[in-house]
Amino acid sequence: MTKSKKVAVVGASGYSGEELVRLLLSHPLVELVAVTSRQSAGQTLAQVFPRFGSHPKARVLRFCEPNVELLIRKAEVVFLALPHGVAAEFAIPLLAAGCSVIDLSADFRLRNPETYREFYGHEHPAPDLLTTAAYGLPEVYRDVIRGSQLVASPGCYPTSILLPLIPLLKAGLIRPTGIIADSMSGVSGAGRKADVDYLFCECNESLRAYGVPKHRHLSEIEEQLSFAALQPVTIQFTPHLVPVNRGILTTLYLAPTQPFREDPEVAALAASIERCYSEAYANEPFVRVLEGRSLPDTKNVVGTNVLELAWRLDPRTGRLVVVSAEDNLLKGASGQAVQSLNLMAGWPETTGLTP
Amino acid sequence: MTKSKKVAVVGASGYSGEELVRLLLSHPLVELVAVTSRQSAGQTLAQVFPRFGSHPKARVLRFCEPNVELLIRKAEVVFLALPHGVAAEFAIPLLAAGCSVIDLSADFRLRNPETYREFYGHEHPAPDLLTTAAYGLPEVYRDVIRGSQLVASPGCYPTSILLPLIPLLKAGLIRPTGIIADSMSGVSGAGRKADVDYLFCECNESLRAYGVPKHRHLSEIEEQLSFAALQPVTIQFTPHLVPVNRGILTTLYLAPTQPFREDPEVAALAASIERCYSEAYANEPFVRVLEGRSLPDTKNVVGTNVLELAWRLDPRTGRLVVVSAEDNLLKGASGQAVQSLNLMAGWPETTGLTP
Amino acid sequence: MTKSKKVAVVGASGYSGEELVRLLLSHPLVELVAVTSRQSAGQTLAQVFPRFGSHPKARVLRFCEPNVELLIRKAEVVFLALPHGVAAEFAIPLLAAGCSVIDLSADFRLRNPETYREFYGHEHPAPDLLTTAAYGLPEVYRDVIRGSQLVASPGCYPTSILLPLIPLLKAGLIRPTGIIADSMSGVSGAGRKADVDYLFCECNESLRAYGVPKHRHLSEIEEQLSFAALQPVTIQFTPHLVPVNRGILTTLYLAPTQPFREDPEVAALAASIERCYSEAYANEPFVRVLEGRSLPDTKNVVGTNVLELAWRLDPRTGRLVVVSAEDNLLKGASGQAVQSLNLMAGWPETTGLTP
Amino acid sequence: MTKSKKVAVVGASGYSGEELVRLLLSHPLVELVAVTSRQSAGQTLAQVFPRFGSHPKARVLRFCEPNVELLIRKAEVVFLALPHGVAAEFAIPLLAAGCSVIDLSADFRLRNPETYREFYGHEHPAPDLLTTAAYGLPEVYRDVIRGSQLVASPGCYPTSILLPLIPLLKAGLIRPTGIIADSMSGVSGAGRKADVDYLFCECNESLRAYGVPKHRHLSEIEEQLSFAALQPVTIQFTPHLVPVNRGILTTLYLAPTQPFREDPEVAALAASIERCYSEAYANEPFVRVLEGRSLPDTKNVVGTNVLELAWRLDPRTGRLVVVSAEDNLLKGASGQAVQSLNLMAGWPETTGLTP
Repeated sequence: MTKSKKVAVVGASGYSGEELVRLLLSHPLVELVAVTSRQSAGQTLAQVFPRFGSHPKARVLRFCEPNVELLIRKAEVVFLALPHGVAAEFAIPLLAAGCSVIDLSADFRLRNPETYREFYGHEHPAPDLLTTAAYGLPEVYRDVIRGSQLVASPGCYPTSILLPLIPLLKAGLIRPTGIIADSMSGVSGAGRKADVDYLFCECNESLRAYGVPKHRHLSEIEEQLSFAALQPVTIQFTPHLVPVNRGILTTLYLAPTQPFREDPEVAALAASIERCYSEAYANEPFVRVLEGRSLPDTKNVVGTNVLELAWRLDPRTGRLVVVSAEDNLLKGASGQAVQSLNLMAGWPETTGLTP
Repeated sequence: MTKSKKVAVVGASGYSGEELVRLLLSHPLVELVAVTSRQSAGQTLAQVFPRFGSHPKARVLRFCEPNVELLIRKAEVVFLALPHGVAAEFAIPLLAAGCSVIDLSADFRLRNPETYREFYGHEHPAPDLLTTAAYGLPEVYRDVIRGSQLVASPGCYPTSILLPLIPLLKAGLIRPTGIIADSMSGVSGAGRKADVDYLFCECNESLRAYGVPKHRHLSEIEEQLSFAALQPVTIQFTPHLVPVNRGILTTLYLAPTQPFREDPEVAALAASIERCYSEAYANEPFVRVLEGRSLPDTKNVVGTNVLELAWRLDPRTGRLVVVSAEDNLLKGASGQAVQSLNLMAGWPETTGLTP
Repeated sequence: MTKSKKVAVVGASGYSGEELVRLLLSHPLVELVAVTSRQSAGQTLAQVFPRFGSHPKARVLRFCEPNVELLIRKAEVVFLALPHGVAAEFAIPLLAAGCSVIDLSADFRLRNPETYREFYGHEHPAPDLLTTAAYGLPEVYRDVIRGSQLVASPGCYPTSILLPLIPLLKAGLIRPTGIIADSMSGVSGAGRKADVDYLFCECNESLRAYGVPKHRHLSEIEEQLSFAALQPVTIQFTPHLVPVNRGILTTLYLAPTQPFREDPEVAALAASIERCYSEAYANEPFVRVLEGRSLPDTKNVVGTNVLELAWRLDPRTGRLVVVSAEDNLLKGASGQAVQSLNLMAGWPETTGLTP
Repeated sequence: MTKSKKVAVVGASGYSGEELVRLLLSHPLVELVAVTSRQSAGQTLAQVFPRFGSHPKARVLRFCEPNVELLIRKAEVVFLALPHGVAAEFAIPLLAAGCSVIDLSADFRLRNPETYREFYGHEHPAPDLLTTAAYGLPEVYRDVIRGSQLVASPGCYPTSILLPLIPLLKAGLIRPTGIIADSMSGVSGAGRKADVDYLFCECNESLRAYGVPKHRHLSEIEEQLSFAALQPVTIQFTPHLVPVNRGILTTLYLAPTQPFREDPEVAALAASIERCYSEAYANEPFVRVLEGRSLPDTKNVVGTNVLELAWRLDPRTGRLVVVSAEDNLLKGASGQAVQSLNLMAGWPETTGLTP
């Protein structure tokens, strides 16, 4: 009854491409029909990714050159795991030919072409598509994704920031001004590219901030927060590079709209926040709001599609502190993209994504 | 001419004790006369710390039981590397007998006994000493340390926060309200104690916040910031545990007192900040203000007594972001304590602390 | 048709217990009916292992005290993930009551009670069971395991050594004398116990040998090798501790029985070895013999139940070098134990163990 | 009295170049007059290596293009930290002009030009120099180094293998046949070059062998062992890559010439080995033979110029197992090179190399 889909992955040789292939190989309703990679063309999946060496399909499926005609002929759904800017070139003809496209790059994540120009330094190649693309955050845009032919899957930092913030902003529990997001990311976030900065000895035993103060991901974060707050939102965002393979931990500093100096005020506000998160996420399979004294730890979410979060009110400072943890390659990239695939295909949302 | 000193270390079996011993063994003007440790009594330094095995002195000097009479008889200066609460018991008789004391615990870091009670849950055992102890941050209290018999060496997080903030607060360049300090620390900060939470497999590939929202170190941070700001200061502080042995990276979010939306305002403020830091630190051997596009990286300070810092103005948000990096066991503990020793003894401040 | 089994895990709070629970929670034919742990009794699986927090069953199943009567009443199959020596106390009454037992400790791995006494320093508590227990290495003892009520699941080092060696010894391709096994293991092999030696800062940036020259695991390795060689085998084995969470890499130094100085001899011997491994493992789902120039890498097997191996002939020295890699918690412990469960239950051997 | 020397470093931008510069900057008798690097020419030492940012000299000394005339004019001693093959081009004119040369590459480590051709695949560019170069292992060739104008500083793996083996071979305590050296190295051994294989995510949580079975370093190891054994020696050597920044741990498997099955034989052999190592190393400042039950750990030698070793007799197998640990960038490269400089200059051998 639930019909399977023929799926292709374009640009599958990076870390998120590899995770995507891993998920699709074991997805019960997906038939992986093509994987492309300029540099790996001709080799089997098992040759390029030795960890797949015991998967029968991976021993026979060979990378091919990225070729739009071939993709159109073979695949119903195409994932684009390409660098920013290149994805759009593939998306346009694929969509025209009727394929569904799930893009993991930043090319279709913004609604506003001017924001794109400001942050990326050039005109968007297909501004019309910006308005038709769904922003692939299922917990927020589930219905839009279901009906969409083009999904722009969110970035890893944005996911870790948006899922904790959007319910609070929509409920009016926090002020949309003065938001600070302090994030640390594992090194896989930098991709599998030969660059001295990401050598083992440069990252191991190293802690550093980067992209201060204006990181490109700010554009999609602020656009989405503005939609939730119904007003323009500007945030302070500092990414840090830390020596783990995978995982993002984000600490958010927020100003509640209600004051809470005295105990009853604290209790009332805490109840509101608890209710807000419960309404948003109690039934979400991939968001876990921690209880009691627990705080998020990336080691509890790495390898899963789950984002976990916890929050604390600080009456001393009048702030709400929220901490979130996710696997940057799964909920922050490929897992979330498969979640969108499940929605687009009408399958149960958790198919192939066991928590 | 520069006379050497007889020095003892009490409680030398932890990570900062080990670093202290390493520095003192190679300090040209220090004669290490005693190291105490209840659990290691009877063993040589080389047996307890194999890395000192090629140092002649370490092969003969044996740990002894902590005994105040013996310390008084043998040593002119005593370092206390003991747990909080225990240090005071040693300090009181040692000071009475005329020894100089450099305490690495939190016992004498606060001026206000009430703050001590609030954060530590009991009365201070020797409140009088709180007013005579020097806070051992040489860049701020150099002259006080020089003339003091008791130095309370600052904590690792406080050092990483105070050195970047105090010049800005004194100069009135930032508001004393709304300060946020987001820190990440290597695991040696948790000490060498058998605790499942700090096992390799629990920390490796793990990123987590802890002590949210009210960490004990806040008390000394806020007291010192209040002195600099000449008004009570309350800050938001979130420590994180990350998988490196050593190093603290702190990111500070600050509100400049002057607005700076337009380019000339940005340039004027930037010039003021640059001047402020230059006046404070251009001649300091152990503070490095980075130039150009460089940002601090703990790997550039681990193994040294240097704190490095960089700052960025963000006209989008109206904030000043300052990042600092230090070795938590050196500038954050034992190196800074030796810096105080040098001051108290009238030696050049960098003796035994090659940058 | 394939009926599910009621399964319990005794002593589930360590690293291999946690992996076992993870596998059993998602095993399609297992109903996890009880998990016991003295220290965690009363808490849910999700409270003890936060990473299971999104699994519905883990949110309700509570650890209970280890109680034999309760286990007999509830479970058909009981996994024992207990310290050596304790497992036997549980196994005896469970077996008498008709339960199947899969023991992850060393208690039933030896056939010879005298070897047990030599290596463990005391008499075996139930020597009769030694002869009835199956040694749970499915690639070697598949049929015995199928018909057994008690399976002694092999240790992590033994698995990494036995799977590469047994086919070569059985085929008479290598001499049974002079074998050297040099292994390195991730820190999870030391278990989740509060011990200063396994703190993050003691293991990170550290490489060390231990248990030289007579490690306890030698007893089961040598007994199994002797069965394969049909003569007593004594090997040299050196384990090393290295800073990864999971994974064992073993390098074996072997002397082929045939000389191979000249090229045709090398080619002939290589063909024999290739045929030997192919006959042994070409159809094994969990052993991967690498082709071409590839060498094993633990990162390609961690998270899977696969052991991978590669070999090289060195005509300069007359030796055969074989390298194997496995996940010490999966193929080296819990994954292999589930493989035995599948055999005992008559299910497909890969059930719940996707490669 | 002890006159200082003008010293230059050619090719100073890699990891061992950086360590060399660090040692030379703080060496009390060295005046660092030039550092060259094609890629960093024009930048100061502090710009290229931020960790030197607080060293006054590092803030002014700029990298220059590698230029032989300039080196001859400025320097008395030149260190070559260049890729293999390039070093010889510099050495020849520098030596002709009267400079002393300490070469960290493999270019002059062999005595036999035919071995060079066999392992490096081309003729040696200056075979005459092979016979005049000293092999820079001070514990073995101290007097030769003292009188030499050209020192070929040994490789990191060779040092970790030769220092434990040479005294045993010279004393005839072990057989020169059948020697096995199993080594693991930190990632800095691969150099600071942009290569996907050495990215953080490729090395972290990874254990792998490489260069099996014939690594280039074998040539110098075997030549030196042959000199010690007075007969041709062929060994089995397997290097492994493990996720630490620095450190090599080598485990050696050896066959004593005397049998030692019975206790008195074991005791007699143990006494011989102890005496042998004591005669060789008791007075060596940079070799530490561990006593009691201690085994080498790289974390106890990293950051120092010390090699530590321990040995165990195994009467079960008739083998002697020796384990050594060193910092691959210090005793395995730059520290040892400075040790040679001290000898060549007639300074105390430990100058600038505090243990």
